Amino acid sequence: MTKKILILPGDGIGPEIVAEARKVLDKVNAQYDLGLCFEEDLLGGAAIDQHGVPLADSTLDKARAADAILMGSVGGPKWDKLDRAIRPEKGLLKLRSSLQLFANLRPAILYPQLADASSLKPEVVAGLDILIVRELTGGIYFGEPRGIRTLENGEREGFNTYKYSESEIERIGRNAFEMAMKRNKRLVSVDKANVLEATVLWREVMDRLAPDYPEVTLSHMYVDNAAMQLVRAPKQFDVMVTGNMFGDILSDAAAMLTGSIGMLPSASLDKNGRGLYEPCHGSAPDIAGQGIANPLATILSASMMLRYTLNQPAVADAIELAVSKVLDQGLRTADIMSAGMVQVSTAAMGDAVVAAL
Amino acid sequence: MTKKILILPGDGIGPEIVAEARKVLDKVNAQYDLGLCFEEDLLGGAAIDQHGVPLADSTLDKARAADAILMGSVGGPKWDKLDRAIRPEKGLLKLRSSLQLFANLRPAILYPQLADASSLKPEVVAGLDILIVRELTGGIYFGEPRGIRTLENGEREGFNTYKYSESEIERIGRNAFEMAMKRNKRLVSVDKANVLEATVLWREVMDRLAPDYPEVTLSHMYVDNAAMQLVRAPKQFDVMVTGNMFGDILSDAAAMLTGSIGMLPSASLDKNGRGLYEPCHGSAPDIAGQGIANPLATILSASMMLRYTLNQPAVADAIELAVSKVLDQGLRTADIMSAGMVQVSTAAMGDAVVAAL
Ligand SMILES: CC(C)[C@H](C(=O)O)[C@@H](O)C(=O)O
Ligand SMILES: CC(C)[C@H](C(=O)O)[C@@H](O)C(=O)O
Repeated sequence: MTKKILILPGDGIGPEIVAEARKVLDKVNAQYDLGLCFEEDLLGGAAIDQHGVPLADSTLDKARAADAILMGSVGGPKWDKLDRAIRPEKGLLKLRSSLQLFANLRPAILYPQLADASSLKPEVVAGLDILIVRELTGGIYFGEPRGIRTLENGEREGFNTYKYSESEIERIGRNAFEMAMKRNKRLVSVDKANVLEATVLWREVMDRLAPDYPEVTLSHMYVDNAAMQLVRAPKQFDVMVTGNMFGDILSDAAAMLTGSIGMLPSASLDKNGRGLYEPCHGSAPDIAGQGIANPLATILSASMMLRYTLNQPAVADAIELAVSKVLDQGLRTADIMSAGMVQVSTAAMGDAVVAAL
Repeated sequence: MTKKILILPGDGIGPEIVAEARKVLDKVNAQYDLGLCFEEDLLGGAAIDQHGVPLADSTLDKARAADAILMGSVGGPKWDKLDRAIRPEKGLLKLRSSLQLFANLRPAILYPQLADASSLKPEVVAGLDILIVRELTGGIYFGEPRGIRTLENGEREGFNTYKYSESEIERIGRNAFEMAMKRNKRLVSVDKANVLEATVLWREVMDRLAPDYPEVTLSHMYVDNAAMQLVRAPKQFDVMVTGNMFGDILSDAAAMLTGSIGMLPSASLDKNGRGLYEPCHGSAPDIAGQGIANPLATILSASMMLRYTLNQPAVADAIELAVSKVLDQGLRTADIMSAGMVQVSTAAMGDAVVAAL
């Protein structure tokens, strides 16, 4: 049975890194007879240039029809001065929301070959393997009312609404408990229940779900403390679950603990496991077009796609092993280069992964 | 002229650490003839036990009448099961809001004597000296409407409102620019203007203020990137300014970069420079009453009080020098203890600072 993959290279280094992930997917498609078929379209700034909007309706239709989406990255200075409503990021936010991709899985893994890249002491981060489960279609990102209004005294006020319903919390909560079941069975739910009512309900729902997963140890942590604990002793965490805004902040901090954000993939899933896969890093407009970007986060995103949407865990394992092999061979793109290693281009790194498969 | 200082020891280790800061204040009061007079009252759990509320009206009256407030810390498991409206933290939030203590100054300084305590590599944090200016009386902490309501479909929803008016942003913005003027003249304003309208206005107001401080270099950073940059290369920052919620998270992360949160003071000021001073750390109920807590953050909070509210920079300098001397002498409380140093009690640490003055 054919599986449709929509490829959205996006902006900046997006097209370069996605091209390498595509090479890897083509290789495993043939090797394991996966029946994947690919279609490509525009997103973000590239879509604004072509259609005047960051996500065209025709692209959204293709996304709805696809089994999975592989994305590069969006945004860049070229589109920074546009009206807020048509900025590149809005295309991504609309895609997440329209497809109800509520479960954002963001692993923060330290590759032993790259241990030196971390700004933290080796003993603090060696063996780090955290999974952050971030709610992605609710919270303050999408809450209404929102905007900028003029008050009675004539000054303006900017406002947003942070809200979560019980069903939204339960949906992401169950996802996180299930992820914890497949890992080390420790789940930390992050909130600010001492100040925010929206997260008082969050905590209550997490507690209510806990008895359904008796093997998982659930604990709660305030977001300020979670930020501290990530810096102090990140290995205390297995799975963390939190809302959209806190998840945005904590997952980036967690990713940076590894020192090699160019290595970290992400998945955004709907309730049926269909998903959007993208690297954690941004579009890096400063190095776009130079052929020096690291394609491994995007290649590992393709591997997550095989694992979570396409139910091909063995193929996903094979890709991850191939990535580990090229690191063992000493191949490094500029962002992860260190003394004694061999610096390679974006394309050479992609080719090396294909060769290692 | 007499200056009234209200002392609010609070809960947990609060009374122990405040007692040591009081010793230091008594000493400099006599030594420099400062004319300080002290009054003590209850806050947080201690106030709940006595009055049934975390901040009694009579205490708030005393706080209004005081020139400055020195606080320990609030909260503990004993009061965790209480109704949300009368939890210890609410007393602190009410105090901040009633006195309009909108400017929260949170320095993150790495003491060279304690460089080893950091979980980050020495070269990443050596000489770290960041000031975070956090808006403290607005944003999502205080925004209305808020609560938990039942939706038409019968499920509940928790909601909060994030809002800032131009005048609120300008007030904290000017404060941050002025702080930057006294330091290295670099100011980073942290927002999430690619998603939240409340912070679109924030960014606009910061840009509008910039021409009034031509010597200060203003830049903007998204909060997720700021969390990453604090982990990756914290020394790039001089002064950071942000809203209440982002400031809560980032200032705790920044404090933890030093590895010795037991050393970090904070100030919360109103528009006339009157203020509340408290250590960055919490009430540590697990070690309360054992005489082992670190009183230095509270002693340094007293020093900030002399600097910012009482206009006694020379006395503040003297206290900071005394703290540095006791560290040079090798004296350490348990939280900052390391090989070859001398472990001392809370009281012995306070006495040592007094002796060094
Ligand atoms: C680009 C931006 C809107 C987005 C977000 O805040 O969700 C990004 O930071 C991310 O984490 O994917
Ligand atoms: C105790 C809590 C309400 C408080 C806050 O969130 O402001 C604390 O974390 C702080 O930073 O002073």
